[in-house]
Amino acid sequence: MTIDPSWISGSGLGSADAFLTGRPPVKGCRVALLGFDGVGQAVVRNLCERRNAGIRLAQIYNAEGSPRPSWIPTEIAWTTDPRTIDLSDFDIVVDLAGDQDRSREWIRSALEAGKSVVTASKHVMARHGPDLLALARARGCQLRFEAVVGGSVPMVSGLRDGLAGDRLRSLVGILTGADNYILTRIEWTGGTFEEAVAEAQRLGLIGDNPADDVEGHDAAAKLSVICGIAFGRQIVFEEVPRQSMAAIEAIDFQYAARLDCTIRPIAYAERRSGGLSAWVGPALVPRASMLAHLHGSQNLLITTGEATTRTGFFGVGAGSRAIAVAVVSDLLALVSDGPRHPSRMPVPTRAHVVTAETDIRRYVRFVVHDRPGIIAELAAAFAAERIGIESVLQEPTLRRNELVFVMTLDPCPQPALDRAVVAIEACDFHIRPPLALRMLDPAVG
Amino acid sequence: MTIDPSWISGSGLGSADAFLTGRPPVKGCRVALLGFDGVGQAVVRNLCERRNAGIRLAQIYNAEGSPRPSWIPTEIAWTTDPRTIDLSDFDIVVDLAGDQDRSREWIRSALEAGKSVVTASKHVMARHGPDLLALARARGCQLRFEAVVGGSVPMVSGLRDGLAGDRLRSLVGILTGADNYILTRIEWTGGTFEEAVAEAQRLGLIGDNPADDVEGHDAAAKLSVICGIAFGRQIVFEEVPRQSMAAIEAIDFQYAARLDCTIRPIAYAERRSGGLSAWVGPALVPRASMLAHLHGSQNLLITTGEATTRTGFFGVGAGSRAIAVAVVSDLLALVSDGPRHPSRMPVPTRAHVVTAETDIRRYVRFVVHDRPGIIAELAAAFAAERIGIESVLQEPTLRRNELVFVMTLDPCPQPALDRAVVAIEACDFHIRPPLALRMLDPAVG
Repeated sequence: MTIDPSWISGSGLGSADAFLTGRPPVKGCRVALLGFDGVGQAVVRNLCERRNAGIRLAQIYNAEGSPRPSWIPTEIAWTTDPRTIDLSDFDIVVDLAGDQDRSREWIRSALEAGKSVVTASKHVMARHGPDLLALARARGCQLRFEAVVGGSVPMVSGLRDGLAGDRLRSLVGILTGADNYILTRIEWTGGTFEEAVAEAQRLGLIGDNPADDVEGHDAAAKLSVICGIAFGRQIVFEEVPRQSMAAIEAIDFQYAARLDCTIRPIAYAERRSGGLSAWVGPALVPRASMLAHLHGSQNLLITTGEATTRTGFFGVGAGSRAIAVAVVSDLLALVSDGPRHPSRMPVPTRAHVVTAETDIRRYVRFVVHDRPGIIAELAAAFAAERIGIESVLQEPTLRRNELVFVMTLDPCPQPALDRAVVAIEACDFHIRPPLALRMLDPAVG
Repeated sequence: MTIDPSWISGSGLGSADAFLTGRPPVKGCRVALLGFDGVGQAVVRNLCERRNAGIRLAQIYNAEGSPRPSWIPTEIAWTTDPRTIDLSDFDIVVDLAGDQDRSREWIRSALEAGKSVVTASKHVMARHGPDLLALARARGCQLRFEAVVGGSVPMVSGLRDGLAGDRLRSLVGILTGADNYILTRIEWTGGTFEEAVAEAQRLGLIGDNPADDVEGHDAAAKLSVICGIAFGRQIVFEEVPRQSMAAIEAIDFQYAARLDCTIRPIAYAERRSGGLSAWVGPALVPRASMLAHLHGSQNLLITTGEATTRTGFFGVGAGSRAIAVAVVSDLLALVSDGPRHPSRMPVPTRAHVVTAETDIRRYVRFVVHDRPGIIAELAAAFAAERIGIESVLQEPTLRRNELVFVMTLDPCPQPALDRAVVAIEACDFHIRPPLALRMLDPAVG
């Protein structure tokens, strides 16, 4: 691809950047870009602004069928018909197809043919990552996926290259920028969950169907992929216990503050015998934690290792330009290594989720019609499951017909908590169902 | 190297970790470990606890001359005489020699012979990094140095691999764990600088001669190396303006708190035309910043890029076991790539420091014998250099014979500030010389 300065948008990279790509690259790796959504467009602009990187973007496939923009250099082939794409024409395939089945098929075909691949598809990596990585290793090529987790934050290369010399025990993170935006907006504005979701949609952080984010599917898929790198064990992501954020209210941030905490959308995993303990969902985190410091759509991952104790990575978790950086960084590494350089990405085994959590405190918020005896009934229900009550918090209020209060509970097994909550939900005094949230230990975050 | 469980110390790595090292490695890379200080010992223990990683530790050189510990496996050769080491016997050389001249000579000899090298020597990389990286490229081998910056925090691989697709504009960090420990200890205990240094020495964070850390030499060397990766321009580290921490007192943290800030040991660099603007020294950072959240001996690096805005890396910046993780991670990458795989580390050019800082506010603290007219004299001195006074802060006190107060100044050129301070220092009312500190903009950290 030659560079015509007339169509270089943005600030343009100086020639001093040429050597940032490392040693003289294999001359002109031919790249097919499969997908032309916002990230795809940002990737093309990034590549066009870059010089001498040895990347020859040769083909764009635009699934949406929109017309070819005039700023695309003429030497790049353009198609909206996937049947016209012959992967054997290319050295590297960039998968931004969006469609899971098509992504998986293309990635598999490319790897089978010994072509290295860069993908941004978290669902393909969560479902098929181990098989595809094994295929890449068998074919002596690479499958890179920095863009799948953490937006532009180099979590994948940080874990794979930077912490390979340690044995990691646990990881905790904020992996969904949209969820973090929603929670911090409720915290700052005092508004409702629905208002915050609408604002996230307006900003393009979240699509028409927010369930993928706010119900934790997105976080579970990312957590699964990152466990594969951190622990060599990729969890079956459908098994990850998920908790929706939809019941969070502004009042929960007030009570969290009383506990010197705030609420963040957390993904957590740790090594256990027989597999991994893992969960995703909103949780109370200490205000002194780095997790509490993360606002808006940022992402953060903190690992705990035997030698390194805490190591963290944070930054921009959303936005086409930022995610394109992850894709282009992977491309530059491939071109620098040579497209047929074997992967050093570990091939994870599959692991099951072991859900026994006996070591985490809980926050339970109640909204009730006030009457005598409520605390006694709740205390009896928890006592029946041998769950200790750590504290009872009730802010002064005149609204006795919609009374809000909070209990915090000692660490207890999840099944015991679940049984207690079922028993409590059967009581007649609730205006809204009780909301139980995990409380992260200060040592974790 | 075979594993004898009897001498495996620590918790031992499970066999599940074998595949974490990536694809089947080149069989048995022979490694020479040159240096057996605390980090060297931790590297050997780490390697001994690791299985099937394809690393055959074949030689240890112990510069200190202490006797061979009984836990070193018998098949590893041991010497205290550097003349007996023949680099041609090895595939990979790990340089932990401590002695700069010897380190440089060994690294150069190994690279000349096409052997890949892992080094932890910040001074060698700061002085000779560009030449040695160019030599590695010319010989088709690798020179890796993750341990040089950030302790176990993978800043080098994060910048090189993870953010290669962006164009970075600036970086700010806390790169010296000892310095951060000293400042946070003054903050928390209200004690003196000397007490904090003594405590850091007692903990082994700092040696008998603390000047390397507290005068900023250490930070300048690390900043130089990291600029080479981030900007492709390695600054001449002797040119980096340094400020000592020795004048910091507990009262400065009280005034910083009045300004909603704290004080941290900062290293800063940004692209400018003709080179880089860079400095190291204690600075006021906003309490809301991630920098303020970093306590004790942790390290943090935050980059600002065109597409990624802020990206951060933090974690353990000191301690033998943690730094050994960086060394071993580099070794694992080398073994996985094969020791003759060419480097994709950019070869930086050398760049000069452009010191014009017109965009940073200043904090100036005075300790004076009180008398009428002091503020007027100070205001006149700043006005003579066209420096605007932003605020004057004076906590109530009864100690009029040792009055402390603070001025904050609008952004101004460094030479103007220097001239104003020289003029002010000539006044007769000082008990201690005025202390001027930079104030980081909230957008930076």
